[in-house]
Amino acid sequence: MSARVPRPVERLIEAFARLPGIGPKTASRLTYYLLRAAPQESEELAGALRDLRATTRFCSRCHNITNLEQDPCAICVDPTREGGVICVVEDPLDVLAIERTGAFHGRYHVLHGALSPVEGIGPDELRLADLLERAASGEVQELIIATNPTLEGEATAMYIKQQLQDAPLRITRLARGLPSGGDLEYADSSTLTQALAGRSEI
Amino acid sequence: MSARVPRPVERLIEAFARLPGIGPKTASRLTYYLLRAAPQESEELAGALRDLRATTRFCSRCHNITNLEQDPCAICVDPTREGGVICVVEDPLDVLAIERTGAFHGRYHVLHGALSPVEGIGPDELRLADLLERAASGEVQELIIATNPTLEGEATAMYIKQQLQDAPLRITRLARGLPSGGDLEYADSSTLTQALAGRSEI
Repeated sequence: MSARVPRPVERLIEAFARLPGIGPKTASRLTYYLLRAAPQESEELAGALRDLRATTRFCSRCHNITNLEQDPCAICVDPTREGGVICVVEDPLDVLAIERTGAFHGRYHVLHGALSPVEGIGPDELRLADLLERAASGEVQELIIATNPTLEGEATAMYIKQQLQDAPLRITRLARGLPSGGDLEYADSSTLTQALAGRSEI
Repeated sequence: MSARVPRPVERLIEAFARLPGIGPKTASRLTYYLLRAAPQESEELAGALRDLRATTRFCSRCHNITNLEQDPCAICVDPTREGGVICVVEDPLDVLAIERTGAFHGRYHVLHGALSPVEGIGPDELRLADLLERAASGEVQELIIATNPTLEGEATAMYIKQQLQDAPLRITRLARGLPSGGDLEYADSSTLTQALAGRSEI
């Protein structure tokens, strides 16, 4: 960065550029945008950033995000949700995606990642011990493992399956196949192989 | 946004999504990233946002960004820069780009935009009156108009040229042609036309 850039500008560019997926060019663009935008816009963003960590926490049961004063979270204490079915996901955004479908009425467990030896993420780095404990409590009939359909997600699913092989519960995995609205022609061969293997009568 | 998302999370997602080029998906991703990152990371970003407006201002002469206590800006008061050559740009990022070349030793004038009837940006919305005043002061020998090579940038250049047609100064425009490292095969025909028209002896 040139010496001609005032330090506060440079500082904000650096702070933006530390965010994932934001490169130095986007960081500059955002900063210069905020310089010209109404001051309330920066204020609101700064305030929201400060409040984020000050007013939220992770649910001590499912590890999803919840309000500071609400632990366990709203889903964990909702008596209309089935306590016997737990959907295991990698992160809170996955909970949102599944909630949006309206097709799941059980509860969740957020691992906060997936096993990845390459990145040094082993079982202890995830909320796995808690999951095994919940699963062993006797209240759970089914674990739906909804980790991502990636190497890491699969490895995590296999690990959970292994750890619970003697537990008296169903362990299921989300179906693999062609995505709705997708084009067979453009499907990768792994997806197509899974779609063939999982074919069903019509 | 689902009712299951705590309000502080939703608030930060909304604040990020108001930034240009950041959609709701990126905004969610950034927010969930910050939830898991070290709290200092959100703090630093929030602090930088608050300081940005509190500690910077626009230079009263060239309208580039400067430190609150330094007006006119460092470039405007630098005695080693030629005061007789002014490079006119649309925004502060353009100043940075030109400074990075090290090929320009004059001063700047930042318009903060370009004329755009479609977006309702007329001469009064830009720092044009000040520019015309600087140009008429008698100290300026050349105006290099470095607005973008777009419809709006061209219109702005033409407007300035028109307003100053009787002033005793050179008005120049950055050369148009093939970008360095570019591939002729992929050049658009407007660029190629300009490159042909501006061809020079070798």
